[in-house]
Amino acid sequence: MNLVTFTSNGVQHWGVTVPGGVLALSAEFPQWPTLREVIAAGAVPEVLAAGQGRMASHAEGSFTYDIPIPQPEKIICVGVNFPDRNAEYKDGQDAPPNMSLFPRFARSFTGHGQPLKRPPESPQLDYEGEIAVIIGTGGRRIPEAEALNHIAALTLCNEGTIRDWVRHAKFNVTQGKNWDGSGAIGPWAVPFTDPAQILDVQLETRVNGELRQSDRSGRMLFPVARQIAYISTFTTLVPGDIIVTGTPTGAGARFDPPIWLKPGDVVEVTAEGIGTLTNGVVDE
Amino acid sequence: MNLVTFTSNGVQHWGVTVPGGVLALSAEFPQWPTLREVIAAGAVPEVLAAGQGRMASHAEGSFTYDIPIPQPEKIICVGVNFPDRNAEYKDGQDAPPNMSLFPRFARSFTGHGQPLKRPPESPQLDYEGEIAVIIGTGGRRIPEAEALNHIAALTLCNEGTIRDWVRHAKFNVTQGKNWDGSGAIGPWAVPFTDPAQILDVQLETRVNGELRQSDRSGRMLFPVARQIAYISTFTTLVPGDIIVTGTPTGAGARFDPPIWLKPGDVVEVTAEGIGTLTNGVVDE
Repeated sequence: MNLVTFTSNGVQHWGVTVPGGVLALSAEFPQWPTLREVIAAGAVPEVLAAGQGRMASHAEGSFTYDIPIPQPEKIICVGVNFPDRNAEYKDGQDAPPNMSLFPRFARSFTGHGQPLKRPPESPQLDYEGEIAVIIGTGGRRIPEAEALNHIAALTLCNEGTIRDWVRHAKFNVTQGKNWDGSGAIGPWAVPFTDPAQILDVQLETRVNGELRQSDRSGRMLFPVARQIAYISTFTTLVPGDIIVTGTPTGAGARFDPPIWLKPGDVVEVTAEGIGTLTNGVVDE
Repeated sequence: MNLVTFTSNGVQHWGVTVPGGVLALSAEFPQWPTLREVIAAGAVPEVLAAGQGRMASHAEGSFTYDIPIPQPEKIICVGVNFPDRNAEYKDGQDAPPNMSLFPRFARSFTGHGQPLKRPPESPQLDYEGEIAVIIGTGGRRIPEAEALNHIAALTLCNEGTIRDWVRHAKFNVTQGKNWDGSGAIGPWAVPFTDPAQILDVQLETRVNGELRQSDRSGRMLFPVARQIAYISTFTTLVPGDIIVTGTPTGAGARFDPPIWLKPGDVVEVTAEGIGTLTNGVVDE
């Protein structure tokens, strides 16, 4: 059973996944307006228990998926975090001693099943399949050895990117990574109870069924525990914060010539034990 | 009369500046929990009218200043935006065709009169004095010719930076720019009613009374109207969003040897028509 945020008839709910659809629980727990407050209250077990053995309130097809945490305080993405990713940049630089980090605004993401938007300003919409972790217990200067205890749930991210805008300026990838609705997070949040859920799982990205990215989380240059420790050195992590943990080689930009996403394409990001995040592509 | 957010006896209020102190108005307008909602409602004139001719509810010294918008949806900083700033990097690169942008989290800032925090991880705390604009009317793809109409207010920013962490990784300045409490925004929000308030005003930064940065907003490589137009190309600006518009030459990192901030230092950022943002420095 997974946690989910969804919209039906224009109203957003949170709840759990059940056979055939989802079960809205937000009306039963009005003290927690979103899953962010559920997680902050340490109430994930209570919410899962409330959904046990119950039927769908909304059948699959009668609702749309939203980002599991609609308004996290922060979304931090880790760049250049799989073997050979540094070499892909062909800039002659050695692999960096620390992970590259960049924030994304929540409005740059849409939910599972919603189309990614290709803006009129650029044809270079690209995919990046990633595992994302949702922080449960916040903290500052979290020791690496304790870091995985701070995770509430796992989800998937298509860290959609407008490639030419990534290199628009002297520093930073901000503007290429923050186009409204250019990426996706979901479909749901899988409660995290065992380090094996993240330590070495298969991560794959397919475009129109063709395998484009395939690697294992165990090969990350900076594993998730290290990410939480490093990020919390400078900023306090709070419940609901999302860390997008890095993409394997094989994004469209790495082909020669590059292969950009176009309207009608379907991108699927899959990870063992989490599920599949599927998004089409439309022109904005 | 300016808009202000402040805390007294552990309770946060918003209101206006009046002779001798501030006048809390938040209890009179419970429909707007923070200045973000005041601005979103287009209620700045109403709030200013409500404060007209009234006395201070809290005398100077009996409260602490907070960031004017405590929880903006986003804070976006513009880098390398004054003449000679690109040359300061001494990397042989030409001035970039577009502005450099990076987000900062609200928790990386404190209010006027509160100390900047130097973390134990680095002695390289540096100042950057800047003018910041607070968005009033949101929008996407805002034309440059109309951009200044989208500003609700002006404020000041000390865009405090941990220099060695700016260059920790391959791309992005994220981790050097987001240490909790390493920068400041304030003291207040000056209602924006005339383009002359931003087009060519003097901006200065002093450390312990010594002038370190001095330039005019009219010399920005990417003027504020261009910033709003460019940023809103990719992300929807919403009321309360803060754009930190860039710092002149003369940060501590540019001296040879560099001069870092140390406990006991006092940094003042001043701009014509806005005021002075003053912060001390303490070890965290």
